[in-house]
Amino acid sequence: MYRVNENYLKLPGSYLFSTIAKKVAAFTAANPDESIIRLGIGDVTQPLTDPVIKALHSAVDEMACASTFRGYAPDLGYSFLRETIAQHDYAERGCRIDPDEIFVSDGAKCDSGNIQELFADDSRIAVCDPVYPVYVDSNVMAGRAGTYDPETGYWSRIIYMPCTEENGFVAELPKERPDLIYLCFPNNPTGAAIKKDQLQKWVDYACENGCVIIYDAAYEAYISEEDVPHSVYECDHARECAIEIRSFSKNAGFTGVRLGYTVVPRDLKCGEASLHDMWARRHGTKYNGAPYIIQKAGEACYTPEGQASIRGLVSYYMENASVIYNGLKDMGYTVYGAVNSPYVWLKTPGGMSSWEFFDYLLANAHVVGTPGSGFGPSGEGYFRLTAFGSHENSKAALERFAKL
Amino acid sequence: MYRVNENYLKLPGSYLFSTIAKKVAAFTAANPDESIIRLGIGDVTQPLTDPVIKALHSAVDEMACASTFRGYAPDLGYSFLRETIAQHDYAERGCRIDPDEIFVSDGAKCDSGNIQELFADDSRIAVCDPVYPVYVDSNVMAGRAGTYDPETGYWSRIIYMPCTEENGFVAELPKERPDLIYLCFPNNPTGAAIKKDQLQKWVDYACENGCVIIYDAAYEAYISEEDVPHSVYECDHARECAIEIRSFSKNAGFTGVRLGYTVVPRDLKCGEASLHDMWARRHGTKYNGAPYIIQKAGEACYTPEGQASIRGLVSYYMENASVIYNGLKDMGYTVYGAVNSPYVWLKTPGGMSSWEFFDYLLANAHVVGTPGSGFGPSGEGYFRLTAFGSHENSKAALERFAKL
Repeated sequence: MYRVNENYLKLPGSYLFSTIAKKVAAFTAANPDESIIRLGIGDVTQPLTDPVIKALHSAVDEMACASTFRGYAPDLGYSFLRETIAQHDYAERGCRIDPDEIFVSDGAKCDSGNIQELFADDSRIAVCDPVYPVYVDSNVMAGRAGTYDPETGYWSRIIYMPCTEENGFVAELPKERPDLIYLCFPNNPTGAAIKKDQLQKWVDYACENGCVIIYDAAYEAYISEEDVPHSVYECDHARECAIEIRSFSKNAGFTGVRLGYTVVPRDLKCGEASLHDMWARRHGTKYNGAPYIIQKAGEACYTPEGQASIRGLVSYYMENASVIYNGLKDMGYTVYGAVNSPYVWLKTPGGMSSWEFFDYLLANAHVVGTPGSGFGPSGEGYFRLTAFGSHENSKAALERFAKL
Repeated sequence: MYRVNENYLKLPGSYLFSTIAKKVAAFTAANPDESIIRLGIGDVTQPLTDPVIKALHSAVDEMACASTFRGYAPDLGYSFLRETIAQHDYAERGCRIDPDEIFVSDGAKCDSGNIQELFADDSRIAVCDPVYPVYVDSNVMAGRAGTYDPETGYWSRIIYMPCTEENGFVAELPKERPDLIYLCFPNNPTGAAIKKDQLQKWVDYACENGCVIIYDAAYEAYISEEDVPHSVYECDHARECAIEIRSFSKNAGFTGVRLGYTVVPRDLKCGEASLHDMWARRHGTKYNGAPYIIQKAGEACYTPEGQASIRGLVSYYMENASVIYNGLKDMGYTVYGAVNSPYVWLKTPGGMSSWEFFDYLLANAHVVGTPGSGFGPSGEGYFRLTAFGSHENSKAALERFAKL
């Protein structure tokens, strides 16, 4: 009899957002007349912008005509998009990244889940705590996490780096040496940003200790402060130790369109083995390129009109972030994030656990958020609200908070 | 120092189609004035059909408006598409597949590369020889293939099932018991089809021996003969032993649009472990759903107009297949395939090796095909031509063959 990958069976319960969806569905079934405001999952709500819509229509028309029809995309992405990204996201920020080092994909979630495949089975990984669940779960599935302790919520082989009020939600360097270090800044879920000199310390640590940093910069567009780096490659020597993952989801609103990219510099080598070549091989073998029409939509994000439209979307959501942050603060909540990030990270009131507050908020305000403990043990006692709702919903949610 | 997944380093050379692309690029650079006819990679050339184009434009318009905008798709696919697939591809053929057992994805290549993750690290896999390279390469990357013998082209832990003229390119049951059996019918690359009673024997073998069949039915739309099954679930008990992978690439011409699906029946269990639930967990953790606009395009393939347009595309390519097959036969080539498949599988003339014939054909006819040996040792001495060109190119290619 065949046997399954038993690492999958070690995963406790379901993916965080699936659990939330089930709880919300149960509430809706029991209370069909109540309107729910969803500030849980980090999904955008505003429509695609004009430049993107125009590019999509135009590319669809190209697919209707034999002379302009496109079949398989290049595995690693069309040159027109890779070159645009290299210029706008890197060269203009003083970072040397070649188009050939950019791998276009269908999103940051897939890339951040798949990237661990390039590393040895017994690699030790380090994650911030709390953290985006995909980093941990994808390594559990690969058998790198050891055993799960349901009492503490920790996996035995994962190195946790607590992000707490005390350290401003920016982890300290790990005491044990990891092989892979997952960093996400601006951070999901805490909304914390990292300063350039702080990030340089991580890069130096990685270079000195033979680690690879997986740098998730999906929320880069929300950075508003000057000394916060937009890319890990703004740090010296990051080309030798860091992979960067980017997304079109949160800036251009592509959560339902699916586009992202991952940078694997050619300088990132383990002896003779080039991680760049390995990732190219993975793309060539297990991936078939992002759709042409969607890569054209991605390209449209970089025109002057496209950039202006993204700034418009980001401002829209940041206004929500500010409303939620300031509103809750005025009500006496302890709140974080919201400055360089579309997330507000709040301390649950009255010593409630994260899930207790989730249930309480759903039942009494009909507002859905995300329990901090779902992101890791150090998230216990916290709660994440997203700014990705509409202005109306964000304000309405606050009014409901005020009545609690 | 971190270490990489050394299984990647065992892969010899590059992915087959990358090698071909490089050879063609070198030829083009050296002979910029020669026109090349590409009948190599199985990529379609005809534009998307009207019903699909209309659905894409309409869905793009929905994304432009806040009230109809869609963010994250359900991880497993929108119900509208899963229900349509269950009805048209299964219920109408007498197969019991619930919408909930259908996992929408961005294509059959990704799914056939990723599905091995669900199984134990030391699973033994069996593949037809020759075979679509993804099945083997994805298992090499996962460390299941053992060591490669460059002399023979075989991996030590893979069970090869030769598909030869003698067995009509339909493999016989393996002598050693595998855990996973990859089958692709109509076959890529040989173009062979399997009869229903033959496939039932595989299903019975899998049920009796505790194997899982990964059934790749990407070329199902090309079946023209009555007793050839369109789905493995036409066989009794297949729900207990088989996963089926389907594609929109070759029927609706979605190679550059990216849409496929995989069926994992709820009856497929290894003790308590449900492969259905495991695949759902993988989708939830490492995938983020196919784009809404592309799922709408997929739905449009199932309307009466959509079905008619697919039949039109399939007829178009099958006319090419017939022209190539009959033309080569008349010239004295030994040819196979083309009846239930868009591929023609020919014996190389004059005892040339597959790559020798590739180089000879490129240099003298400026026609690109795929060397049979690229699909496995038993493909040596064969060559694959696809019918996915235009009528004009297919005929022109034949004229060039005639002058050789």
